[in-house]
Amino acid sequence: MAGTNSELKMIAEGPVVILVNPQLGENIGMVARAMANFGLAELRLVDPRDGWPSDTARAAASKADHIIDGVKVFDRLEDAIADLNFVYATTARSRDGFKPVRGPSVAAATLRTRFIAGERTGILFGRERWGLNNEEVGLADEIVTFPVNPAFASLNIAQAVLLVSYEWMKSGMADETETAFQPVEQTPATKEDLFGLFGHLEEALDARGYFRPVDKKPRMIDNLRAVFTRRAMSMQEIRLLRGVISSLDRYTRKRPRGATDDQDV
Amino acid sequence: MAGTNSELKMIAEGPVVILVNPQLGENIGMVARAMANFGLAELRLVDPRDGWPSDTARAAASKADHIIDGVKVFDRLEDAIADLNFVYATTARSRDGFKPVRGPSVAAATLRTRFIAGERTGILFGRERWGLNNEEVGLADEIVTFPVNPAFASLNIAQAVLLVSYEWMKSGMADETETAFQPVEQTPATKEDLFGLFGHLEEALDARGYFRPVDKKPRMIDNLRAVFTRRAMSMQEIRLLRGVISSLDRYTRKRPRGATDDQDV
Repeated sequence: MAGTNSELKMIAEGPVVILVNPQLGENIGMVARAMANFGLAELRLVDPRDGWPSDTARAAASKADHIIDGVKVFDRLEDAIADLNFVYATTARSRDGFKPVRGPSVAAATLRTRFIAGERTGILFGRERWGLNNEEVGLADEIVTFPVNPAFASLNIAQAVLLVSYEWMKSGMADETETAFQPVEQTPATKEDLFGLFGHLEEALDARGYFRPVDKKPRMIDNLRAVFTRRAMSMQEIRLLRGVISSLDRYTRKRPRGATDDQDV
Repeated sequence: MAGTNSELKMIAEGPVVILVNPQLGENIGMVARAMANFGLAELRLVDPRDGWPSDTARAAASKADHIIDGVKVFDRLEDAIADLNFVYATTARSRDGFKPVRGPSVAAATLRTRFIAGERTGILFGRERWGLNNEEVGLADEIVTFPVNPAFASLNIAQAVLLVSYEWMKSGMADETETAFQPVEQTPATKEDLFGLFGHLEEALDARGYFRPVDKKPRMIDNLRAVFTRRAMSMQEIRLLRGVISSLDRYTRKRPRGATDDQDV
């Protein structure tokens, strides 16, 4: 929903994505969507097989219209990268040559560093069928390749763009472990709150003769407490558990909460 | 090409991918392909809208037949995860609740640790349109979410599976910066080789009166050497450059290499 999204921050920056001889409009659209998902903005096409503009591409882009509208088309790869300072070529195959080969996370960190320094960068992606040829790879500064299953190594072009875009987004995060949202509260409760829970539960169980035989009681209490300390609980969780204990403790099946007579039976 | 690929290692292990109410066979196929790319093997479907098996899914899987053939279908999510020890739910939206929320790399590391410990794990993915409902998320142990562009946050289901699969593959690598192949040679040449290049070039230039005025010669040599030390060159690169210098030095336009008379003019 564009109305809602327009209030959110639209990230649109970073390296240019260059598709060399893309064949299917659908793939171009999925590339645009993947770029938009991870904050990239600029898409260039070199000699797209089915021409441009493409309705199929726009449909597959799932509303990444800002990227589809900004697409630039070139006849030659040299022209498509003429204004860039540093270019990666993506390839799944080993190449004869001297170019450094990087994994996606190292490549993304390099692109981020160069972006911050004000350089214009780009990433080349080859044809769906057979990727980039050696001459095209030769125009790039470095190679980026993906850690794939050796026996099933062929990545769809939109998937390859997605992975680079995703690593680009991660490279801009202060902390890779951060997430866009967090649970309601994760602060562990204080130990006092925890001991309150222990006391509440143990008293309710003791009143029912749960701790038998009596010489096993310390060990049984140890085990019981272990269950509730395995993971640091928040205050909300403790409150919830105490509600459970209160309910079990105070009411019976015969006289549930809300029954006409709330006295114990 | 199956013939070639069968000699390569087919990785097939790790967490189960569970799609809840997937709608399009094409998406199921693309999920299978993404899983195969990054070494996951086991796909389960809960109540797929268009039934199972699906020719569309098989076509979109691009030969990830080992995954399509092994798909298991369940009526209820509870049954689909009954044999698992630990389950992630993927979601793009914040949920009311106490569940820990992780990024993909942390989730992958957790899944890898549990895999090594012999646990059976799984990852839930929701419907194309609106993901998982709260009750389904409630069946999982933790939540995994993706660091997306806030204004363009909707990931295609196959893209979401790809990212988790990719992080799974990376979590099994001793070193995330390793790549499947490397350039022919990247060892920097020794300094002796480098000094040989300097001497060769500077002598050839000196013979032509390049260093003028003569008091600027030390500075000119500094600048020249800086060009060739900016990046550590390999022995091959130095050999190539020395060939270039020899060619410029030894031959002329009038008497190129291979001319009847190879003497200097």
